[in-house]
Amino acid sequence: MKYCFGVDIGGTTVKMGLFEATGTILEKWEIKTHTEEEGKAILPDVAASLKEKKAEHDLADADIIGVGVGVPAPVTEEGIVFGSANLGWKYKEVKKELEELTGLDVEVGNDANVAALGEMWKGGGAGYKNLIMVTLGTGVGGGIIVGGKILTGSHGAGGEIGHLRVNPHETESCGCGGKGCLEQYASATGIVRLAKRKLEQETRNTILNRNDLSAKSVFDAVKADDSVAKEIAESFGNYLGRALANLAAVIDPSIFVIGGGVSKAGEILLEYVEKPFQENAFFANKDVRFALATLGNDAGICGAAKLVLDDFAE
Amino acid sequence: MKYCFGVDIGGTTVKMGLFEATGTILEKWEIKTHTEEEGKAILPDVAASLKEKKAEHDLADADIIGVGVGVPAPVTEEGIVFGSANLGWKYKEVKKELEELTGLDVEVGNDANVAALGEMWKGGGAGYKNLIMVTLGTGVGGGIIVGGKILTGSHGAGGEIGHLRVNPHETESCGCGGKGCLEQYASATGIVRLAKRKLEQETRNTILNRNDLSAKSVFDAVKADDSVAKEIAESFGNYLGRALANLAAVIDPSIFVIGGGVSKAGEILLEYVEKPFQENAFFANKDVRFALATLGNDAGICGAAKLVLDDFAE
Repeated sequence: MKYCFGVDIGGTTVKMGLFEATGTILEKWEIKTHTEEEGKAILPDVAASLKEKKAEHDLADADIIGVGVGVPAPVTEEGIVFGSANLGWKYKEVKKELEELTGLDVEVGNDANVAALGEMWKGGGAGYKNLIMVTLGTGVGGGIIVGGKILTGSHGAGGEIGHLRVNPHETESCGCGGKGCLEQYASATGIVRLAKRKLEQETRNTILNRNDLSAKSVFDAVKADDSVAKEIAESFGNYLGRALANLAAVIDPSIFVIGGGVSKAGEILLEYVEKPFQENAFFANKDVRFALATLGNDAGICGAAKLVLDDFAE
Repeated sequence: MKYCFGVDIGGTTVKMGLFEATGTILEKWEIKTHTEEEGKAILPDVAASLKEKKAEHDLADADIIGVGVGVPAPVTEEGIVFGSANLGWKYKEVKKELEELTGLDVEVGNDANVAALGEMWKGGGAGYKNLIMVTLGTGVGGGIIVGGKILTGSHGAGGEIGHLRVNPHETESCGCGGKGCLEQYASATGIVRLAKRKLEQETRNTILNRNDLSAKSVFDAVKADDSVAKEIAESFGNYLGRALANLAAVIDPSIFVIGGGVSKAGEILLEYVEKPFQENAFFANKDVRFALATLGNDAGICGAAKLVLDDFAE
């Protein structure tokens, strides 16, 4: 039996998993992310933790196919990062450094892209090779899988769907500096923004409390049949569904997998997205499926493991 | 020396080329496309013409790597077409039929995608592996190259950028049945539409003649410094530039190659597209290059040849 490691480096913790080459997760654990001093301890900490785990399981280097890593930044095909605000990194040759530290083969990808690969492998998109994952969290992230492979792009910035410009009339700025980005309407914070704007002009009764708004409170109110909340969800769904129709015309995927904290609202969220999608989709794309992500926080380590397993298979 | 054929099947003529494996075109010729009776003669005609050319050049089957084919329809990875209005075809297993007719290996792709591959190989996008080609003709076509390969998609409908919905307020319908498609503003007919709308409300002097409008007349007037024409070109550029900014956020290409009849306007057309592109591009994509296509009508046969050469190399 051969093994591999999947590593998901986040701004607070590094999640890690030991996998059999068949895909079974043998063990999961995490360590703290030390971002101080430009995050210089992060990769040595990861290497030390992997070394410990190899010893615990009595694994030789020859038993280990490699280490897959997801990081919160664009990553080039060569495993280079030009900076990660979340980790404190500036220019870093992640693949090269971690290979030197561990003596193992390393593959590196952007965390959202890697999560998409994980959901394709053993999550909501299992069985499909052309897939778009949309992560609705604090921001909107995306990962595009074409023919079973991550679409990395020339700068490692493929799949940045949160920054699709969907509203030329927007007056407020997105975190990226642009205006009218999808993230401003379809993220958790975007939904709160839509809700606040709605409640400012609303005279009808609603169970929504304008001092305690969240994506969850909006969708809870939708489930309680609150008319105001339903119109907020429609606005969210229109922005996201129209954007996904355009993505489909370009990528021609088999399935969209929706994940992230906002997706905990469940199937009802998909309904609000699928209707405007259908109204705006090019005819060849009308049979695209929608599914919720199923791996939750494990998507990152699973996709990271898959990165290195794919590389091994070739 | 090994050889291959590139075949570009259009609604009026089939363009063909004999290539050396190194890429040199030895000869180009064309035959008429017989679309009657569901286009049943098209592939036999192609096979007969290839056979004749083999005899002329005294080529044995063993000298020939294969035949690449571009067709005006979505094509699956298996070389199957589900219908082509231009050719009269219904369901057709193009790869299988032409392999049986010729005894040669055949690879088939959508014509716009194949043209993009041609421009990557030896045209405006030479030297780049991540490229988006935009063809501004009667309609707006697109081809996306990721890592040197065509993005085919699940239905063979990848890169249908003419049907990106760019205007939710449009009241007229596109040929696809949708409303507000990029093709309604950025094709030759789209530019005429924009010009007509503009002239209906325009009181200033202009050299444009509302009874003789074309994409060419609009850009000729732009070059003559006509203010009204320049505003029409700005409107065209805004729709196209914003759409390309969104495409860049998703695909992260190195270069856009603009071709088709409208692109004969030249570098001035790129200026009208690049400004709104820059205003709307995600920061990671601001250094994407723009170039005009250079292969003209040869893009199809070149890309078709490249299809089969790539397949041979693997």
